[in-house]
Amino acid sequence: MKISCSKTALMNGINIVSKAVSTKSTMPNLQCILIEASPSEIRLIANDIELGIETVIEGTVTEAGKIALDAKLLSDIVRKLPDSEVLIETNANYQANIRCERSKFNIPGTSGEDFNYLPEIEKNRYISLSQFTLKEVIRQTIFSISDQENTKIMTGELFEVTGNTLKVVSLDGHRISVRKVELKESYEDMKVIVPGKTLNDISKILTGGIEDEILIYVTDKHILFEYENTKVVSRLLDGEFYKIDHMLSNDYETKFTINKKEFLDCIDRASLFIKENDKKPIVMNIENSNIYLRIDSSLGSMNEEIEIKKEGQDLKIGFNPKFLMDALRVIDDDEIDIYMINAKSPCFIRNADDTYVYLILPVNMAA
Amino acid sequence: MKISCSKTALMNGINIVSKAVSTKSTMPNLQCILIEASPSEIRLIANDIELGIETVIEGTVTEAGKIALDAKLLSDIVRKLPDSEVLIETNANYQANIRCERSKFNIPGTSGEDFNYLPEIEKNRYISLSQFTLKEVIRQTIFSISDQENTKIMTGELFEVTGNTLKVVSLDGHRISVRKVELKESYEDMKVIVPGKTLNDISKILTGGIEDEILIYVTDKHILFEYENTKVVSRLLDGEFYKIDHMLSNDYETKFTINKKEFLDCIDRASLFIKENDKKPIVMNIENSNIYLRIDSSLGSMNEEIEIKKEGQDLKIGFNPKFLMDALRVIDDDEIDIYMINAKSPCFIRNADDTYVYLILPVNMAA
Repeated sequence: MKISCSKTALMNGINIVSKAVSTKSTMPNLQCILIEASPSEIRLIANDIELGIETVIEGTVTEAGKIALDAKLLSDIVRKLPDSEVLIETNANYQANIRCERSKFNIPGTSGEDFNYLPEIEKNRYISLSQFTLKEVIRQTIFSISDQENTKIMTGELFEVTGNTLKVVSLDGHRISVRKVELKESYEDMKVIVPGKTLNDISKILTGGIEDEILIYVTDKHILFEYENTKVVSRLLDGEFYKIDHMLSNDYETKFTINKKEFLDCIDRASLFIKENDKKPIVMNIENSNIYLRIDSSLGSMNEEIEIKKEGQDLKIGFNPKFLMDALRVIDDDEIDIYMINAKSPCFIRNADDTYVYLILPVNMAA
Repeated sequence: MKISCSKTALMNGINIVSKAVSTKSTMPNLQCILIEASPSEIRLIANDIELGIETVIEGTVTEAGKIALDAKLLSDIVRKLPDSEVLIETNANYQANIRCERSKFNIPGTSGEDFNYLPEIEKNRYISLSQFTLKEVIRQTIFSISDQENTKIMTGELFEVTGNTLKVVSLDGHRISVRKVELKESYEDMKVIVPGKTLNDISKILTGGIEDEILIYVTDKHILFEYENTKVVSRLLDGEFYKIDHMLSNDYETKFTINKKEFLDCIDRASLFIKENDKKPIVMNIENSNIYLRIDSSLGSMNEEIEIKKEGQDLKIGFNPKFLMDALRVIDDDEIDIYMINAKSPCFIRNADDTYVYLILPVNMAA
């Protein structure tokens, strides 16, 4: 194999596929990047079995071929190269010779014969949306997945398409996040559970904006994200997702509208007095046109009031401040509506057209 | 005590004095900030015995008094306050009531009666220089102090004034860094050893530029840095600093001029192949008008050549790449001169007027 490309193109490609390099496994192929040069293109591939990524980079192929190189070493070398043309040439012993200006490196590689290519994905069922929208719905829901491997399904997110609506749901037993997005056209229904790690990784490598489309294909076992020169394939999580519709009731006894930033900052201040491990809730009194927060702990006390527009009953209710802050941080609206029933029922933060719903369970105030 | 000030002024003051708050001690006073309000000014003080800092912040004193508050809690609270006026009021039980807009905090404090004030420093011997210059000389020497507490003197830096010259020296047994600065006027001779931690801390809190002066006073035991509204007092290290003049020979057998960035980047790339703990040097061959670097390790190999302007003998010599990179990173010149004698004698990176000299011992290439 003999190829040349710019340092920038190579570095970008390495950064993209590196998300699918295993950091835990000791199987050499899972820690490698395969460089595959066909007469027409240079392809980088990494695959840790759960997640596989391939991307095509711009460059010139003088001699087709392939080689698998240690991802970390390759990445470290390329990062430290001058911003210039890079030449990679392999010999019969799978040594790679990397040259850039007057730097010459030799590093050992392997043939790539037993490399795990990305699985072939049948392209029947798909949707198309903008890269920006995909990143946004992930950001606005990913915080409420569970990190407990014993509730495997909760470590992923439901992606459900009905007609022209994409609904993304995550939940961890204490809260549920739902985001709905209107797609440009209608698609065949789909319902899959995507691993949270895959969604975090795809979020990090997407650089595109509102105008840049991404295609998402699904099969029974896999999901494929395809955009520009890059393909990301992930296994799906097996099983049925939790039924949540009956939990998202529209009934309420108390509804109030509050300035999001004031509310978030106030809870953030109050949380100073809550130590990591004690389960003390932050208690709020919703009374007339104010919400009163008061917290007392061994460290000190705080109280603060915020003006609200209220409908319905007064209420005293307690929450884990982290759960409230997580949801408030990802909402872009300046003013938000919060719905409550009583001190033991979940609260809902939702907007008028239901494009987002955050359900949060209260904490028993006697705790 | 009853005072008010802007959140910004209070936060800046807390950030400055926090450098002298102990993170290790369990003595409450060492973890506190003393707020002392006299009729004319508001003063914040922290002192961990090695280092003491006080700063005066702008604000209004309604009732003079003082209180010692936990530094971390105070800092966390103030950071999270809205950007507005802050009121602090204490009661007879040394509870502090902190108010800002609609937030009200109560935190416990102590009287501050047994607080460690900064020691009185006799202001006989001093120098004046710009804050920018002080930060620069610290940055350009601090990397070669020792972190070994058993060679206490090496954990500090020599500050030596002779006439109108300030000389700053640090060394760790493998290398010596010397920076000389011309002061605007001549001062009485002084020679003190300043703890490295103090210099790191003062570097971080100085925000001033070339035009902003700082005064440095010394006594037998202490050094006082005084600028704007802030005083920083540190203990000095006891003992005699190492005599280094006889080591800084001007003799050489090989001298070359090299582009600093090319040299630094090349060593940086080569260091990829040196694992943290093996003592393998990076070997360079200085031959005619080139320097050849070659490194071979179990990870792979690299070689590279850089053009130089050479006088004197060819030479093959090995170095710990970190020591070379540390020095090269802090030198601002584009082209640098390096002087060598033989493979077992130190090399010197120095400029024509000797405002900097970096001595680095070579590594035995058989190692």
